[in-house]
Amino acid sequence: MGIEFTVFKGSPDGIVQVTTHSESPRGNQVLIKITHSGICGTDEHYRQAGIGLGHEGVGTVQEIGEAVKGFKVGDLVGWGYTHKTCGICEQCLKGQDQYCQDRELYGVHNFHQGSFGSHAIWDASFVFHVPKGLAPEFAAPLMCGGATVFNVIETYNIRPTDRVGVVGVGGLGHLAVQFLGKMGANVVVLSSTNSKREEALKLGASEFYPTKDVEKLEIGKPLDHLIVTTNSLPNWNLYLDIMKPTGTIYPLTVSFGNLDIPVFPVLVKGMNIQGTAVAARSVHNRMLDFAARHGVQPVIERFPMTKSGVEEGMAKLRDGKMRYRGVLVA
Amino acid sequence: MGIEFTVFKGSPDGIVQVTTHSESPRGNQVLIKITHSGICGTDEHYRQAGIGLGHEGVGTVQEIGEAVKGFKVGDLVGWGYTHKTCGICEQCLKGQDQYCQDRELYGVHNFHQGSFGSHAIWDASFVFHVPKGLAPEFAAPLMCGGATVFNVIETYNIRPTDRVGVVGVGGLGHLAVQFLGKMGANVVVLSSTNSKREEALKLGASEFYPTKDVEKLEIGKPLDHLIVTTNSLPNWNLYLDIMKPTGTIYPLTVSFGNLDIPVFPVLVKGMNIQGTAVAARSVHNRMLDFAARHGVQPVIERFPMTKSGVEEGMAKLRDGKMRYRGVLVA
Repeated sequence: MGIEFTVFKGSPDGIVQVTTHSESPRGNQVLIKITHSGICGTDEHYRQAGIGLGHEGVGTVQEIGEAVKGFKVGDLVGWGYTHKTCGICEQCLKGQDQYCQDRELYGVHNFHQGSFGSHAIWDASFVFHVPKGLAPEFAAPLMCGGATVFNVIETYNIRPTDRVGVVGVGGLGHLAVQFLGKMGANVVVLSSTNSKREEALKLGASEFYPTKDVEKLEIGKPLDHLIVTTNSLPNWNLYLDIMKPTGTIYPLTVSFGNLDIPVFPVLVKGMNIQGTAVAARSVHNRMLDFAARHGVQPVIERFPMTKSGVEEGMAKLRDGKMRYRGVLVA
Repeated sequence: MGIEFTVFKGSPDGIVQVTTHSESPRGNQVLIKITHSGICGTDEHYRQAGIGLGHEGVGTVQEIGEAVKGFKVGDLVGWGYTHKTCGICEQCLKGQDQYCQDRELYGVHNFHQGSFGSHAIWDASFVFHVPKGLAPEFAAPLMCGGATVFNVIETYNIRPTDRVGVVGVGGLGHLAVQFLGKMGANVVVLSSTNSKREEALKLGASEFYPTKDVEKLEIGKPLDHLIVTTNSLPNWNLYLDIMKPTGTIYPLTVSFGNLDIPVFPVLVKGMNIQGTAVAARSVHNRMLDFAARHGVQPVIERFPMTKSGVEEGMAKLRDGKMRYRGVLVA
């Protein structure tokens, strides 16, 4: 037995389509027929590595291993960045899956498969049910983008009474605005120009401020939290000024540079800078439930799940033209 | 009525002795006859400003205003960095005194007096009883240095089960080691050379690692917390490597530069960087009680409370030769 997969991988020359033969799922594995995949900015970092691309997968269960519980053939499921952990380190025991201390060995990347492709075989413990009411094309971008911003809210206890800044309205930012709006928080959007003002207010923002060429932001009351979702790190002085003492900044921007945050205001205002990556499984499930109950709906652009569709979608994201999340459709 | 004060101030030419005439304490004020003052690294930043120096004061209450409750003439008292707040901003209402939003207007510095001098008049709400069993010369360095490191432990919930790194054994670091040791934490000291090894282990450290010329630290189990007490910011790559995922770094170093922390490991390990300054009054009182109950005792060098004593003490600290806290004695 076994099945022929199509997988889209990165390579030094760009995207490669690979056909591979795989065994059937065994033990606790499920075989998923992929119907949709989100395109995430971090895929770009692996475009030239020999790694199966895509980590915002949604599809239907096509076959299950003999030890699988809780999933049956035909179930609509999804998965995100973490697909396996050591299970025995302190972070695993605490349910902080994404920070598994053997992450590099177990977690995050699978060299042979991703959600850009026809099928995937995963450990069922790292697969999520897509709740009723959440369409698969909208569920896909939640598997990494949604999980990343919701984790900030849920894990670090952002409250409905908080005044929360969101810097950047893109794949992550437009989801943060929706989650925060639906929970009743006071959402303040900071975006380079006014071009996304109307849409941001419609999505759940209470206030909107353009930041381009601004030397000092005037936003009235200061912020309890600041979620930074831009592609590159911002001018921190601009933002430190509008933070409440003891406020927290979440720099979600994946960067290989330094934070370069001025020390003095961070100290005297007792500020906090919280690193965070995707979400633990418990948080991921709560995110999906919240999104389904409240109709959180990514704004998407569709591309075919083909080599040229993958290339076109990734190029549009790279050029900063995606509004707001690309989804590959099988 | 009134009293003649001696005050040591900063000035562009260095330390200046000023004699000033003051009214008696009114309302909620107390007049304190200063017996001891710690010398803190932050005094150095004001050595050339026209500000009353010193914020680790201890002395006896000599006179009280008509509204003062809880203090009587003869009480042994101390005070630290914060001497008045607005009382109505969110931080004040939450008891986060040191982060008062009108801090620049109300708090922190008094231009006319400090703890380098003969007397001071303060609002009694920002004066602390020195508990029995705590000698005034040991109480003084706790008023800022002790409060600063204890605030990390108390406010950010460092647990006796935690493995805690302390970078630098100086005025702050040698107190952090004692507090952490007395509460049963696993204390790991990181210091440039082995010269302070024996003393650090005696003060409460479980392990000691020299860091000078080290390219990769090998400390076994990673750390839950890292308290950075050095005069200048360290090489973060060295320390990010020895942190547990979700661990917290507290950079106590007062610097006017940038943090320069690499973003990527902070994100993928879900790390936290927590700014913190001195302590709220509630925490300050708990610190003094804990220090008295456990015999936490700053290691001090004594200097006379004179212009030359102030100059000599500040110079020794500036030259990095203080072991570990200077105390001016009246």
